[in-house]
Amino acid sequence: MGKANTDAIVVDEQRLGAYIEELGSIGQSPDGGLFRFQYDQAWQQARDTLLRWMGDVGLETRVDAVGNVFGRIQGNDNGVILTGSHVDTVPSGGKYDGALGVVGGLAALAALRSRGKPARTLEVVALCEEESSRFRANFFGTRAMLGLVAPDEPQRLVDQDGVTLAEAMLQVGLDPENVSQAVRKDLEGFIELHVEQGRILYDEGVNVGLVDVITAVTWETMTVHGRQDHAGSTPMDLRKDAFQAAAEMAREITVLVERWGRPAVATTGRWTVEPGFPSIVPGMAQFSLDLRHPETAVRDRLLADVHHICETISKRRGVDVHVVRDKDEQPATLDTALFDVCRDAADACGVSWRRMHSGAGHDSQTMASRIPTSMIFVPSVDGRSHTPDEFSTLEDCVRGASVLATTLHMLAYT
Amino acid sequence: MGKANTDAIVVDEQRLGAYIEELGSIGQSPDGGLFRFQYDQAWQQARDTLLRWMGDVGLETRVDAVGNVFGRIQGNDNGVILTGSHVDTVPSGGKYDGALGVVGGLAALAALRSRGKPARTLEVVALCEEESSRFRANFFGTRAMLGLVAPDEPQRLVDQDGVTLAEAMLQVGLDPENVSQAVRKDLEGFIELHVEQGRILYDEGVNVGLVDVITAVTWETMTVHGRQDHAGSTPMDLRKDAFQAAAEMAREITVLVERWGRPAVATTGRWTVEPGFPSIVPGMAQFSLDLRHPETAVRDRLLADVHHICETISKRRGVDVHVVRDKDEQPATLDTALFDVCRDAADACGVSWRRMHSGAGHDSQTMASRIPTSMIFVPSVDGRSHTPDEFSTLEDCVRGASVLATTLHMLAYT
Repeated sequence: MGKANTDAIVVDEQRLGAYIEELGSIGQSPDGGLFRFQYDQAWQQARDTLLRWMGDVGLETRVDAVGNVFGRIQGNDNGVILTGSHVDTVPSGGKYDGALGVVGGLAALAALRSRGKPARTLEVVALCEEESSRFRANFFGTRAMLGLVAPDEPQRLVDQDGVTLAEAMLQVGLDPENVSQAVRKDLEGFIELHVEQGRILYDEGVNVGLVDVITAVTWETMTVHGRQDHAGSTPMDLRKDAFQAAAEMAREITVLVERWGRPAVATTGRWTVEPGFPSIVPGMAQFSLDLRHPETAVRDRLLADVHHICETISKRRGVDVHVVRDKDEQPATLDTALFDVCRDAADACGVSWRRMHSGAGHDSQTMASRIPTSMIFVPSVDGRSHTPDEFSTLEDCVRGASVLATTLHMLAYT
Repeated sequence: MGKANTDAIVVDEQRLGAYIEELGSIGQSPDGGLFRFQYDQAWQQARDTLLRWMGDVGLETRVDAVGNVFGRIQGNDNGVILTGSHVDTVPSGGKYDGALGVVGGLAALAALRSRGKPARTLEVVALCEEESSRFRANFFGTRAMLGLVAPDEPQRLVDQDGVTLAEAMLQVGLDPENVSQAVRKDLEGFIELHVEQGRILYDEGVNVGLVDVITAVTWETMTVHGRQDHAGSTPMDLRKDAFQAAAEMAREITVLVERWGRPAVATTGRWTVEPGFPSIVPGMAQFSLDLRHPETAVRDRLLADVHHICETISKRRGVDVHVVRDKDEQPATLDTALFDVCRDAADACGVSWRRMHSGAGHDSQTMASRIPTSMIFVPSVDGRSHTPDEFSTLEDCVRGASVLATTLHMLAYT
């Protein structure tokens, strides 16, 4: 991978803006939120729209065995440089998360078509599942390409209506027996354009972020058992209120992580309190902890402090606490050589950039486990994401997609 | 009401023990919890069992227009001294809450039958609804007797399966058009025997509690709106986490009430946190507050402090808080003359007693709004209630029922 060609490739602003708006209208609810889940009607409409757009700009199109949608510029060599992102959304999501990487990659390949046949083959992909909004099948499209889908997943995973992943595949003309046909052996690099989903670039006024590490996500479930009692006749000093104990834990954990400071984050987002009546002192409270830090050593130290907090509070209050680790990711280190190409591309485009980690998970973290991978972040206005209010300016989207196009040019046309 | 006759009337221990165990087996789930809800199968079985027991000890039996079950000893005068309690349970309740007042009253009337015809008429009642476990119809049986049922209640109230109260009445042979026929104009006093449901008597080793005031229950719902954000890419210092704000409120309210001390109690028992995913910073959190103090002035002062806490925290954190008053009871002051008769009866029985307030709500609080009312509490082991583990010793139950029988004797046989 070289830097022989440092021409800036600028994507077409009008084309990219039209792609964003049209894709952003597919699966839109009356209040503006997007609901585009794996294999549903909106997903099918998005697939067909993308195939049409890919054809319109002269790409070879293909849908693989799990529903990933590809557009291709054949090169002299069959080794593939891949770009793209996911096309599914969270419930009530926005127009940019995932979608920008798909249509930005498409706009980049559209811009490169006029440069003739590349040395290496280029592909853009709309990955078919990242958010797990319908099935608990995180990164399904990416994992299928890397041979990381467990054989029983299509039969085992069910959506909230009891439909199996296998049944949902059959409904859109995909044979769950053929998942392994999606495996790719020809990938030589992956570059993902994505919105930051945070506000660091926005606050600092930097045009793009180049990602070095995708943070490790740790999920734990804390279950606190106290004593269920009558809310009227049990004096405060005799209670073992499971919720109050759990709330004290959640508050102390949060203060701990706030004091540690950026980039550590902790979230207690899911709560169950039982029996859940106003007039009964809770006997059980359960909450989720999402803890993230890009350095494993710091993450482990914070987790040790978290567990110490829970044990100390449970002992003092005479309640029981039980901790289960639900997710235990390792940070994903992205490719340093690809990082340098992206940096040179940003410089060639006259775009300001900064090195940063990603606090959110992405297909790239799975791609990075098998092939050289890089990520380019575009500023999110006010740092909003996973909401219909998510927004990035078209100017910023064009800058990010142009850095992507320039990177692909440097990688494939030398 | 006099104290001319101060003979101690002692109820039959074996009879009372058998009543408690047999009634406590009706509606029992495999894990021991009682599920006996208004008009359900278990309730019907309890009704039939009580009618049989009442007949066995020579009482005139009757079921009124809403399902209250009565046993009667006709006196020379038609004015009625009523005793009893409710026969329905909370979900997974115990054998004593409500039930003790029914079978204790029955054992008391059984003991009094041998004393000949009383001057005033005596009745024992199994009230058909107190807990609102099936319908939101708190104190339905009591309210029907006092003419306090709204005309639209039978059609308006539905259980969780969508069955209206009217339909449920028809299923057990009661005509919802006839609710007003349950109204009584002949009641001259009500005395309710009940388990304390707290641990004051148990801790102090006192045999019975004589209630002067039933505390006022205030229910509020606090709704906190913050900003929903991505849990990975939103730094701690930029969040408006609705749950963390609500948890801080709930903790501070609890500390406030703990510092005030007995008999103030506050409970935050019901929680909703949205969207409720581990990886999303909560945008909304809602919790219930149950606040109780037997003095209205103190209750109001505590509520003012509660609202100040919520406003201060919401301002500091930049979130919105909205408070709705769901229940706003006044404390019920019980009858002082009846209190004195109960006290004399306890002394006649050689039973230790203390004056106390009730932190829990009871049919007596509604009865007291119309007729002279008194309550006798029996110790709850470890203060447990609203759980299958609820227990009172048979010795204590016999003492309480004997104080009740002696009170009724003093009231009706002079």
